[in-house]
Amino acid sequence: VDNRSDTTSLIGATLIDGTGSDPQPNCAIVIKDGRIESVGALPEDPNARTSREIDLSGKYVIPGMLDANVHLVLHVDPDVLLRYDPGEYDELVLEAAQVALRAGVTTVFDTCGPLESLRRVRDRINVGERTGSRIFFAGNIIGNGGPYSEDMFPNVAAGLSSIVVDEVNRHWEQGVGAELTWMPADEVRARTREYIASSGIDFVKFASSSHAHSRFIALSPDAQRAIVEEAHAAELTAQACTQSPEALKLSIDAGVDLLQHGDVTGLWPIPAETLELILQRRLPCVAFLYTKRYSAAMRERKPRWHSNAAWGEMMAVKDLNDRQLVASGARLLLANDMGVYGPTAEASPRMISVLGGLPDAPMHLGRSHIAWLRAAWEHGMGAMDALMATTRNIAEAYDQADQLGTIEPGKRADLVALDASPLEAPENYERIAFVMKDGEVVDRSRLPEHPVLTRSDPR
Amino acid sequence: VDNRSDTTSLIGATLIDGTGSDPQPNCAIVIKDGRIESVGALPEDPNARTSREIDLSGKYVIPGMLDANVHLVLHVDPDVLLRYDPGEYDELVLEAAQVALRAGVTTVFDTCGPLESLRRVRDRINVGERTGSRIFFAGNIIGNGGPYSEDMFPNVAAGLSSIVVDEVNRHWEQGVGAELTWMPADEVRARTREYIASSGIDFVKFASSSHAHSRFIALSPDAQRAIVEEAHAAELTAQACTQSPEALKLSIDAGVDLLQHGDVTGLWPIPAETLELILQRRLPCVAFLYTKRYSAAMRERKPRWHSNAAWGEMMAVKDLNDRQLVASGARLLLANDMGVYGPTAEASPRMISVLGGLPDAPMHLGRSHIAWLRAAWEHGMGAMDALMATTRNIAEAYDQADQLGTIEPGKRADLVALDASPLEAPENYERIAFVMKDGEVVDRSRLPEHPVLTRSDPR
Amino acid sequence: VDNRSDTTSLIGATLIDGTGSDPQPNCAIVIKDGRIESVGALPEDPNARTSREIDLSGKYVIPGMLDANVHLVLHVDPDVLLRYDPGEYDELVLEAAQVALRAGVTTVFDTCGPLESLRRVRDRINVGERTGSRIFFAGNIIGNGGPYSEDMFPNVAAGLSSIVVDEVNRHWEQGVGAELTWMPADEVRARTREYIASSGIDFVKFASSSHAHSRFIALSPDAQRAIVEEAHAAELTAQACTQSPEALKLSIDAGVDLLQHGDVTGLWPIPAETLELILQRRLPCVAFLYTKRYSAAMRERKPRWHSNAAWGEMMAVKDLNDRQLVASGARLLLANDMGVYGPTAEASPRMISVLGGLPDAPMHLGRSHIAWLRAAWEHGMGAMDALMATTRNIAEAYDQADQLGTIEPGKRADLVALDASPLEAPENYERIAFVMKDGEVVDRSRLPEHPVLTRSDPR
Amino acid sequence: VDNRSDTTSLIGATLIDGTGSDPQPNCAIVIKDGRIESVGALPEDPNARTSREIDLSGKYVIPGMLDANVHLVLHVDPDVLLRYDPGEYDELVLEAAQVALRAGVTTVFDTCGPLESLRRVRDRINVGERTGSRIFFAGNIIGNGGPYSEDMFPNVAAGLSSIVVDEVNRHWEQGVGAELTWMPADEVRARTREYIASSGIDFVKFASSSHAHSRFIALSPDAQRAIVEEAHAAELTAQACTQSPEALKLSIDAGVDLLQHGDVTGLWPIPAETLELILQRRLPCVAFLYTKRYSAAMRERKPRWHSNAAWGEMMAVKDLNDRQLVASGARLLLANDMGVYGPTAEASPRMISVLGGLPDAPMHLGRSHIAWLRAAWEHGMGAMDALMATTRNIAEAYDQADQLGTIEPGKRADLVALDASPLEAPENYERIAFVMKDGEVVDRSRLPEHPVLTRSDPR
Repeated sequence: VDNRSDTTSLIGATLIDGTGSDPQPNCAIVIKDGRIESVGALPEDPNARTSREIDLSGKYVIPGMLDANVHLVLHVDPDVLLRYDPGEYDELVLEAAQVALRAGVTTVFDTCGPLESLRRVRDRINVGERTGSRIFFAGNIIGNGGPYSEDMFPNVAAGLSSIVVDEVNRHWEQGVGAELTWMPADEVRARTREYIASSGIDFVKFASSSHAHSRFIALSPDAQRAIVEEAHAAELTAQACTQSPEALKLSIDAGVDLLQHGDVTGLWPIPAETLELILQRRLPCVAFLYTKRYSAAMRERKPRWHSNAAWGEMMAVKDLNDRQLVASGARLLLANDMGVYGPTAEASPRMISVLGGLPDAPMHLGRSHIAWLRAAWEHGMGAMDALMATTRNIAEAYDQADQLGTIEPGKRADLVALDASPLEAPENYERIAFVMKDGEVVDRSRLPEHPVLTRSDPR
Repeated sequence: VDNRSDTTSLIGATLIDGTGSDPQPNCAIVIKDGRIESVGALPEDPNARTSREIDLSGKYVIPGMLDANVHLVLHVDPDVLLRYDPGEYDELVLEAAQVALRAGVTTVFDTCGPLESLRRVRDRINVGERTGSRIFFAGNIIGNGGPYSEDMFPNVAAGLSSIVVDEVNRHWEQGVGAELTWMPADEVRARTREYIASSGIDFVKFASSSHAHSRFIALSPDAQRAIVEEAHAAELTAQACTQSPEALKLSIDAGVDLLQHGDVTGLWPIPAETLELILQRRLPCVAFLYTKRYSAAMRERKPRWHSNAAWGEMMAVKDLNDRQLVASGARLLLANDMGVYGPTAEASPRMISVLGGLPDAPMHLGRSHIAWLRAAWEHGMGAMDALMATTRNIAEAYDQADQLGTIEPGKRADLVALDASPLEAPENYERIAFVMKDGEVVDRSRLPEHPVLTRSDPR
Repeated sequence: VDNRSDTTSLIGATLIDGTGSDPQPNCAIVIKDGRIESVGALPEDPNARTSREIDLSGKYVIPGMLDANVHLVLHVDPDVLLRYDPGEYDELVLEAAQVALRAGVTTVFDTCGPLESLRRVRDRINVGERTGSRIFFAGNIIGNGGPYSEDMFPNVAAGLSSIVVDEVNRHWEQGVGAELTWMPADEVRARTREYIASSGIDFVKFASSSHAHSRFIALSPDAQRAIVEEAHAAELTAQACTQSPEALKLSIDAGVDLLQHGDVTGLWPIPAETLELILQRRLPCVAFLYTKRYSAAMRERKPRWHSNAAWGEMMAVKDLNDRQLVASGARLLLANDMGVYGPTAEASPRMISVLGGLPDAPMHLGRSHIAWLRAAWEHGMGAMDALMATTRNIAEAYDQADQLGTIEPGKRADLVALDASPLEAPENYERIAFVMKDGEVVDRSRLPEHPVLTRSDPR
Repeated sequence: VDNRSDTTSLIGATLIDGTGSDPQPNCAIVIKDGRIESVGALPEDPNARTSREIDLSGKYVIPGMLDANVHLVLHVDPDVLLRYDPGEYDELVLEAAQVALRAGVTTVFDTCGPLESLRRVRDRINVGERTGSRIFFAGNIIGNGGPYSEDMFPNVAAGLSSIVVDEVNRHWEQGVGAELTWMPADEVRARTREYIASSGIDFVKFASSSHAHSRFIALSPDAQRAIVEEAHAAELTAQACTQSPEALKLSIDAGVDLLQHGDVTGLWPIPAETLELILQRRLPCVAFLYTKRYSAAMRERKPRWHSNAAWGEMMAVKDLNDRQLVASGARLLLANDMGVYGPTAEASPRMISVLGGLPDAPMHLGRSHIAWLRAAWEHGMGAMDALMATTRNIAEAYDQADQLGTIEPGKRADLVALDASPLEAPENYERIAFVMKDGEVVDRSRLPEHPVLTRSDPR
């Protein structure tokens, strides 16, 4: 029996495998059962070839991209969420996962969203019932309220019945909402344990900082340590939302595995000691990189007479952090709170000043990773490091390096073929020839299958 | 051929026919083709009887009730409206029309609502496709914005995208919204004419007062006259929303046919001259009567440290107006801005202080007309006058006296049989034996057929 | 006895007398007892000369300027008003009157302010106790609330005790505040009569439009007529605050003598019929002219994502009105709601978007009349018409033409000498050689005598 | 030489000396140079008596009372503060210190206020230039903003210029304001050191909790430790504002000397472990005790439809904490954020729901300590313990036990004579016969000397 019959070979492409190795021209990648069986030079013996071959001469093959921080339900305005029964947001989740996959982002880490829909869609994609980017999710940010809570998006729920507000929030909060900020660490530990046990989440995220009042600390050091310990006991990675230098430091001290937007430290840059700690421990760190064009446009949009005078300063502090992180060789991960917005978002009070008309806007899943890569370039990151920031680094940070992030034997066959070298220009990541996930070529033209927020006429 | 075969006789009841005549015991009402053929003493000759007879011995028969001011879509909070495509609120309208019919209110006058749904449901009920209270509607209050406009319900749309706000409002406004307040009278006339011609409305209502800023006048005297002239040219009655003494006077001067909540005059009672005018012209006047229990409960709910100190004073002024209108024998009509609220309304910022836990709350369609009748009793109105305020007076005010409002030959066979005399106690209006509309007995147990806001578990 | 001894002659200047006559070179103006005794050619006979002569060769003499709409207390933010006992704002009024006088504005018409301080300072200036621009004032705008009322400046009093709010407002409202909008016309008439009788005001202003909710009408036509009749009965001129086409029309119908900012009509331009009426009746009309630079800067400051999207449209409508008024030869008056702001105003929530950094800002007393004149130039008004808009036209509109507005025998000797011709460039109005009021040369270097808002270090 | 000549003896009273000892009848207290020289039985030898004697037969003498948490400038609404130049609030401070002294509160600890005025008035009282309660003060709460900052009193500054807001806040913040929440611990340490060195403060207070968003932690554990270390290095006691269980715990771990309102823990009661810690370490703990009457009235004032539903729950948690602290014998201190309010406060948006018409209101300096003592009674505290809570306990907690808090030789001669025993009823603390401070009898009838907020007609 020739077991070659159920294998596929990608031949002729230049391989950039995500390990940081030099590009390897004229390569053969053999795939079997959804995994990479071998990677190497094109076999000269025609008999050694698999029956199914895809000729990729002239293309560049990279690992399927990962995004370290998405929100598959990000457009949470009432006109979107209130069309659904609370907790029944599956079609929004699926649409977003398909928008990501179409763009070559084969794996996404959803760091805050409605648990039940995320779980259902993740599971359906995993068993092959539905097509979409592979989902890992955290459910709620432990210690934060849902999208209609005052600490998450103030005023968005100003006109809503508190009954509706509570119904919606509950599907995010899942018993580990903002009420945990009142509790002693032992109680936070117990709630976290129960949440991990019952929720089916893939990793743990908690609130080191308050969300809306970002200068404040949401959970005490004892509570943070308790959460990390519970995560690790369940063999899950842990991360925190931090927005100030001390909240960042607290989360490191608590033992997080990944710094979620570690470059966001409000009005004071990362202290030298903390930066040193990040480098010594080789802590993976998401950086919310913005391009120069976006930063300039935002600064112009908020002139001096705007109420939030500190906004521009925060951008400047973040940019300083980003430069230091890049210059010091920190292990950075691509992400930017991306998701899918429908057309009404542009005129939403919550979003009106940051969406719409801005070049290189950072929050659009399926598009804004290109802006991140361009920003990496602009901040002086090497092209290979930028590629690893969206491939291997993320897989390692989330403890998925045995499965994802590089093109090596044994890994899942997630990969993207590009028409031009991604090491030449960030825009080349958009020149997608094909996307493969778990060994299957994705029919990108069909995605998303059931457009909701992305349909041309949304109503 | 015996044409008696397709007639129905209601026999044996005491008839209170809505004309103000004394109750007529042991009466026979003959109904044919949906109309009243004859009313009189029970025929002695058994051969004179119709083949179909309903024995109503011991019952009291009154005309089907009318309500002079309802809003079939009244619960306009985002959690209700945003579940629907804008303009597609038919199931809300139908539910409310059925809630009314179940309670013996066989005809409602909707004075502000989403035009297209109101028209569709009105037409379906009229042709017999659907069961429900007979609907007459005005569509928009000319010169007012939709439910999510600042002058209608401030802040309810605070968290909504302006795109969504505009989409929803448009289905109320229909080209005759708040922008008319900027226009000269000629332009208001032209817009009104076009609106009347294209909308299929049954009567015209316009904004003499601003809605939220009720001390102000919304449309100029010239504009008001133009609207009334256009209504009359199209053979429609006209009415205005007035909330101050001068706005009330302006609408009378403009020639309105009916005073919509003429008793609501803010912080200054109806001047003597205006009251005299109302009496001389026999102008039909809706009064928003409140029971003593409700008034007392509301006053208690708004103690002196509440921001809206004027609220209690307005209640006192209205009560003074009501006493004067009743005492002077004005031609009053029952109404109270009734509609159907779902359970989330109780915790809505817009409604939280006026709904929930209050006795005799005035806004619930299908229930609150009883509170109105009790309040009429309390204000010294005679029992027969109260009955006429919900029957003949309304029919006359809306120019429907040839069809509705009394039990007389030639009128539509809308009537209600009660177990006890409505002249004895207002609660007796609730003791319904059966409801007939257009000659058909209504199966009240089936209504509403598709509960939405009224279902026990609304989500 | 030579009665020449107490006369003064201004000799040698080019006279532009405010009547519209051609400039008259080498002129002699003889002044006695504060009034102009004669105007003519320089007498050749030296004996005919007065003992006191001022040589103005090379200068241009124009009438003292008037401003048709100022607010001597305009910076009403809490940090200004709450430093004083309520009603004790005399030093603010005096400072503003001196700022005006220093700039050659010898007469101001204060159309809304704190009655008692205005009256005290007016009287002290009139009897010569204090130096300052001659004041005529209206006190309150009948039917409007004070500066801390919701309809005047929403939110400015959000953090203040209602006791303080009422105390301050009372000194503006004086018994004819916003409560009049609830009243029937007869009551408005009675209140107005009492106010006129007891207040010592110089002219009457009332609210045809609401202030903050400018699309609405504040006082009914009957009430407006009653106010005008009472004003005329007391031999006072009457004017109205109008902000919409219909409110403007109502005030004309009511018989006002002057259209206060008749060019401000919100979102709909002045209808052709109303413009025709203004022209036929030769109604004096204040126009709030803005320069192109200011209009452009304001439009840029409010981009499309700003909450108040209508703001730019209103500017465009006003500009259209201004062009039509100028082109049709309407009798325009210079004014722009000018007053004195201290340095904190720039960062006040109420003012932050319209003050600060804007070229040709229209609201600064003592400076912004130059911007108005430049705007007149830009709108195509002739130089002589512009001059008359700030001199004779205003005097006539306020029924003061026998005393003020031109340089003619018998008039008060208010005049300004300029270093360059005001018919050449609007900036030449700033090149002041000297200012004379009531025959006295003003020591401009001393003004304002006691700077409060204008001191360099305001605290 | 008879050194008795400059001594005073208080004779005949029952002494309750603040040490917890039994009352001692018929006692002689000898005072010299402002200090207590001896305490004992009445000497039998008439020659042993001092030349000056005050007969207190039938009276009860207790130590001058202390208050562990006052704000001498508490009525910070704009109508009060904006009458003064920023930082010039001396007359408010002095008035409050005199109101306290009149009531027998001879020493107050001001835990947050405008530094310069507090320092000036403290110093003047200390050197005898002015009369008033002895002041110890902390200046700013390190890490908190001033009274017009968003985290202190949201919205109070909504209508104010940000220039004014900053000017006022600066006099509270003094370089250790809310910006410290952004800083790493080292920077917080440096700022604190500088503040202590330059400010002249008597003790240190910092923000463990956010003020307005009380569930959040304001300063990190490292920052808290740094502050306490700096305070102790300067020989000052340290305390924190805590409003949640974890913030309380953090402050204990940081080494504070006194728990400021340790009973206020938001929505979760003090955990058993923390309570145990408080007891073991004998940590002095301020408790904000409320009487039953006040608690009941407040609950009634905030019915279920009020926006702040959590408010009642917080009261219940505090009450539970108070019961546990009393029952377990914790070392409690009297305080309640007392200060002086003028009459406008009652109608201030900031205060309207908690002031006015409420029995036993806890915030009035000079009166509300009686309510605290009554509440102590109600919570089961012994009468002698209650007395020590306002005398010795506070002196010890603030490290002033060698000077204050008891009537023992060597202590300052601060004492109060009462007409009835304070161990019998809390109201007896109001029955003041006289107050002595530093050996001088206070002329209570003259206090406050220059009433501002307490004058009968405040404007």
